Amino acid sequence: MSGNSFGKLFQLTSFGESHGLGIGGVIDGCPSGIELDMEAIQKDLNRRKPGQSAIVTQRKEPDEVEFFSGIFDGITTGVPIGFAIFNTNQKSKDYDHIKDQYRPSHADKVYDDKYGFRDYRGGGRSSARETASRVVAGAIAKQFLSDVKFTAYVSAVGEIQMNKTYQEVDLDTIEQNPVRCPDPEKALEMEKYIKQIRKEGDTVGGIISCVIQNVPAGLGEPVFNKLHAELGKAMLSINAVKGFEYGSGFEGAKDRGSNHNDLYNNDGTTQTNQSGGIQGGISNGMDIYFNVAFKPVATIMQSQQTINNKGENVEMQGKGRHDPCVVPRAVPIVEAMAALVLADLTLLDRVVKK
Amino acid sequence: MSGNSFGKLFQLTSFGESHGLGIGGVIDGCPSGIELDMEAIQKDLNRRKPGQSAIVTQRKEPDEVEFFSGIFDGITTGVPIGFAIFNTNQKSKDYDHIKDQYRPSHADKVYDDKYGFRDYRGGGRSSARETASRVVAGAIAKQFLSDVKFTAYVSAVGEIQMNKTYQEVDLDTIEQNPVRCPDPEKALEMEKYIKQIRKEGDTVGGIISCVIQNVPAGLGEPVFNKLHAELGKAMLSINAVKGFEYGSGFEGAKDRGSNHNDLYNNDGTTQTNQSGGIQGGISNGMDIYFNVAFKPVATIMQSQQTINNKGENVEMQGKGRHDPCVVPRAVPIVEAMAALVLADLTLLDRVVKK
Amino acid sequence: MSGNSFGKLFQLTSFGESHGLGIGGVIDGCPSGIELDMEAIQKDLNRRKPGQSAIVTQRKEPDEVEFFSGIFDGITTGVPIGFAIFNTNQKSKDYDHIKDQYRPSHADKVYDDKYGFRDYRGGGRSSARETASRVVAGAIAKQFLSDVKFTAYVSAVGEIQMNKTYQEVDLDTIEQNPVRCPDPEKALEMEKYIKQIRKEGDTVGGIISCVIQNVPAGLGEPVFNKLHAELGKAMLSINAVKGFEYGSGFEGAKDRGSNHNDLYNNDGTTQTNQSGGIQGGISNGMDIYFNVAFKPVATIMQSQQTINNKGENVEMQGKGRHDPCVVPRAVPIVEAMAALVLADLTLLDRVVKK
Amino acid sequence: MSGNSFGKLFQLTSFGESHGLGIGGVIDGCPSGIELDMEAIQKDLNRRKPGQSAIVTQRKEPDEVEFFSGIFDGITTGVPIGFAIFNTNQKSKDYDHIKDQYRPSHADKVYDDKYGFRDYRGGGRSSARETASRVVAGAIAKQFLSDVKFTAYVSAVGEIQMNKTYQEVDLDTIEQNPVRCPDPEKALEMEKYIKQIRKEGDTVGGIISCVIQNVPAGLGEPVFNKLHAELGKAMLSINAVKGFEYGSGFEGAKDRGSNHNDLYNNDGTTQTNQSGGIQGGISNGMDIYFNVAFKPVATIMQSQQTINNKGENVEMQGKGRHDPCVVPRAVPIVEAMAALVLADLTLLDRVVKK
Repeated sequence: MSGNSFGKLFQLTSFGESHGLGIGGVIDGCPSGIELDMEAIQKDLNRRKPGQSAIVTQRKEPDEVEFFSGIFDGITTGVPIGFAIFNTNQKSKDYDHIKDQYRPSHADKVYDDKYGFRDYRGGGRSSARETASRVVAGAIAKQFLSDVKFTAYVSAVGEIQMNKTYQEVDLDTIEQNPVRCPDPEKALEMEKYIKQIRKEGDTVGGIISCVIQNVPAGLGEPVFNKLHAELGKAMLSINAVKGFEYGSGFEGAKDRGSNHNDLYNNDGTTQTNQSGGIQGGISNGMDIYFNVAFKPVATIMQSQQTINNKGENVEMQGKGRHDPCVVPRAVPIVEAMAALVLADLTLLDRVVKK
Repeated sequence: MSGNSFGKLFQLTSFGESHGLGIGGVIDGCPSGIELDMEAIQKDLNRRKPGQSAIVTQRKEPDEVEFFSGIFDGITTGVPIGFAIFNTNQKSKDYDHIKDQYRPSHADKVYDDKYGFRDYRGGGRSSARETASRVVAGAIAKQFLSDVKFTAYVSAVGEIQMNKTYQEVDLDTIEQNPVRCPDPEKALEMEKYIKQIRKEGDTVGGIISCVIQNVPAGLGEPVFNKLHAELGKAMLSINAVKGFEYGSGFEGAKDRGSNHNDLYNNDGTTQTNQSGGIQGGISNGMDIYFNVAFKPVATIMQSQQTINNKGENVEMQGKGRHDPCVVPRAVPIVEAMAALVLADLTLLDRVVKK
Repeated sequence: MSGNSFGKLFQLTSFGESHGLGIGGVIDGCPSGIELDMEAIQKDLNRRKPGQSAIVTQRKEPDEVEFFSGIFDGITTGVPIGFAIFNTNQKSKDYDHIKDQYRPSHADKVYDDKYGFRDYRGGGRSSARETASRVVAGAIAKQFLSDVKFTAYVSAVGEIQMNKTYQEVDLDTIEQNPVRCPDPEKALEMEKYIKQIRKEGDTVGGIISCVIQNVPAGLGEPVFNKLHAELGKAMLSINAVKGFEYGSGFEGAKDRGSNHNDLYNNDGTTQTNQSGGIQGGISNGMDIYFNVAFKPVATIMQSQQTINNKGENVEMQGKGRHDPCVVPRAVPIVEAMAALVLADLTLLDRVVKK
Repeated sequence: MSGNSFGKLFQLTSFGESHGLGIGGVIDGCPSGIELDMEAIQKDLNRRKPGQSAIVTQRKEPDEVEFFSGIFDGITTGVPIGFAIFNTNQKSKDYDHIKDQYRPSHADKVYDDKYGFRDYRGGGRSSARETASRVVAGAIAKQFLSDVKFTAYVSAVGEIQMNKTYQEVDLDTIEQNPVRCPDPEKALEMEKYIKQIRKEGDTVGGIISCVIQNVPAGLGEPVFNKLHAELGKAMLSINAVKGFEYGSGFEGAKDRGSNHNDLYNNDGTTQTNQSGGIQGGISNGMDIYFNVAFKPVATIMQSQQTINNKGENVEMQGKGRHDPCVVPRAVPIVEAMAALVLADLTLLDRVVKK
């Protein structure tokens, strides 16, 4: 009910801050009988973790998950799955300077406003480190939905956009470059750009696209919990996200109905897919696809004017080890959140018919 | 828990289909002691209702709300507010032809897929008529939040875009034209275009922008129920919506951190507002602003090829009285959903400190 | 989330006060495809309604339910079922004297404490009239669970107790006497006693017992939402209820494990049923049975000393048409709440296995 | 939404089985700014833990809690509090014999029925070990509600009942004997009886009474989430509980209104307190008191006939280290659940008025 649970039946409750003992969560409602591939879970964590390539933060965090409960002989038992990732290699000293200062476009000040005080080390609860718990839960959700294929990838870094649709690229090549862009030429261009941005002590935003394939028709709970509304909330809950669109998206707003409508084939599939696999908030069996916009990371390695908690001017110098661009590491997070949404809606759909 | 409740503490549970006895809802959690302006509620309903101008559907529906409970001597009592809007002037005969047929880009087929059968008349539960209940609840939420100002307006119809920010126009002029666009020249252009579109038996999409002013700092419940995540879900739950962005939005994804960061003034306000009034999912006291993309209405007054529930090809001719462009009537719906989100988060924020 | 919704998947949200326009509710999550027997719903309402016999209140309220939505051609469609029972025959004048006065052992004062003011007419929201909405929803839940048999009956009125177990009586005879006690001799004794109590201007408490038969094994959601915990909450939420026990109940607390344990038969049934059909919070397929204690109605037709909202002494004379004993009319309410619990847990149990 | 979360705003989500890596939970919604007394938390855990006296199970479990998050410099930060108690000293071998066998009146068989298979070691999730997490969360809830006094005590063991009301004993003496009964003579009698029962390899039930003092008026959320309904659910969710009654309880069902009604004093207190501090589901400021019935522990040190998962007869001998009577150790659990209910309702009450 407070803001740290996601999902209604397949539900993740998350805890942890950047510099406490550890982060983790409880997955309540994961069905019994799923034989878990533990390596697949760790693999998704590795795709998110710092230090994995030259274009991400060079912090070293092993991010190994430990399970407390809910799994017996490698199989889910239907009772809550508790898990934790212990924090290691935290350099809390790096954050002494922001104890009383508010970093621009960070959540420091609003946490003070809301809660009265905050754990300032590493951003505390507002740190993107929290998303590792999402990746664990999402990796389990993926295994529950073993027939469904979730593929996220980077489609833009700054002004550099991949101008191909997901059908025009090979989605199996995403992990072949550190940017996680399936267009090799653009990937190279993006990689170079990120390195240059880092050299300048700056950061840059980007877009992640995601395709969900082999989704059965019928998922989504109108009128408020439409499939795309749940996906949108899931994506917007990820740190640094500024926008979400699915199917024809913002471009669709320019279109006419006579062009935009997806006409049916006799088998119930549609000839086009402007609907993005969702009609009236319910999946129709076609591919679901959507875009997620990420702002540039707020922590820059440049000097910035800001204020402290007394409203005094202070000059702040970015410290620590940070990402110049967040989208390569956010790819597994987008997939995880998509999987959590689909897992939940799959369970909810089991109860609508007599 | 099923999909027809919105909000956690200030909660609307909605019911009703296009052609049943009526639509309505229950508002549970509306605080006691609010002196209700009943005319203000009806006024918002009138902004949404059919037949209000030459560019919307010409159906005549009075859309008068009746309250069953929760209001005594004109004041909310803190117990649930039940209300209904009786359906009148429904022409169910208009829909006999779609009993067994699936309209392209409508929810007809997916409702059959999900629930096994459906009330086909007027789209049943998937009809946008359902949003009238949202407007009632939103109008009450606005009165609860009497210090906050919610202003939605049309910023694009098809390719015609208003290229001014909300600060560059007079937001008080929105109701002065049937399009609800605060840029008078663009409004005229949009109005002409909608009329032409209708003449062609076609429809067109558009964008609604919304500004929320005078929001106190501290609203939003990280990590999953961030303010913008709740707003995004709220907007995406409205019929025909395809995308949501706030603050710098999709444009922000192209930017660099050094340019994108909002630097502080000494009083804690920010010099720029790329954050859109929200940092880390929590309001910071600056204006909240966002854009919502609507697809073109799927019902067109042209002949379309489609299939019936046996998978046979059928030709379908659009009938009935429909909107050529949905955005002018959706303006109060966007405001209503924004008000419901803020009312809920306002209550939730009351419980975070000892 | 506020207190007027019951159930997680099969969910009733209730509204209405004793003397407003009407009471009603929304059932969200009722599965599609249930062919409703409308007469059965009305029959349960009639078992609850005032004026049905000489031993209950002589108010005349037709209590006819109108459905707004969610039912098409007599079948549930899976979308929310909105319904209302219009208030008629309300004599608000009867309550002018309690506008500023607090009836002893009623909720008048605590509603003022909690909400700041109240609709005092007929007890407003705290009136047991609200339970009619529960009966409507429960009657639909019963039809969803057509294989399960819910039977409540009066087992005690004041000191007069039926000393037979449910196996020793004919449960089909319950409706043959106005008390709804399946022991004909005790029923007669109880009836006489209630008439005498009324003559004295007094009221008396009682106990309702309930048996649920043919429940499949596996219902209940440990560790917090155990089947008997949900039943207990459901029963305790009914006006005037003071206690709940199931299976061996309070007597079981006196017993030894060697005597109390239910030994298994080879088919998995148990030789005894001290467990009351529930082990570890999950149904085991045996009969579920429980007792619910009701206090005497607080409104008596005698003069009582009390206070007004200024803390001044006032003398109050009971007025209006009230029940001398609430249990005969509460029998269908107990069944309805039991059915709502089982319907919800039946749906929840659909999602626990892969 | 699954069964392992308790509370709406002050919410505990619990995980863990008897013989896994550990048990624990997440408290989401605990207000910020509470200076925690860590020793008080551990003290309540010690009151619950095995091996604390001669009349409880002699298992040795240190039950030390570790906090992962949500506490900074000893003060709650308003973000989720994750915690774990690592399992130690588990003798899983003791349970090999029940891998395929169903212990009478235990949850073994119903877990197999519901989930398809189970972690059989030590009862798995159905073990009362899970309640340690409740005690941790409850101890924090008590500190949030520092003005409220929660006192549970043993009022009956088997047939031996303490015949004094809570006003007639010194509630501060409860911890002075291992039974936790504030009537010293009865305590001695109970202690002897429990030792005798153990010698016989048997177990016995009992009753815990609880008083909550200094509760402000106004807590409770009618109509479904009445204060006593939430308390009842909370208590019934504890392992082995068979019944709940508050105020006059089952005795009240025998009474007449003219005797049962609580008349007011001029200050709004009542002369009697049959209401048990609750009217219409809302606290009235008087003491809240209730009784909770516990069945005898199902594991006895005697030979019992039972069946295995093939339905074959098997003879089973109780093994391991078990409690002859559960009520002495359940006292802090009852207090903890009461504190969780009150903490949640305290937060919910903050949002009912404008």
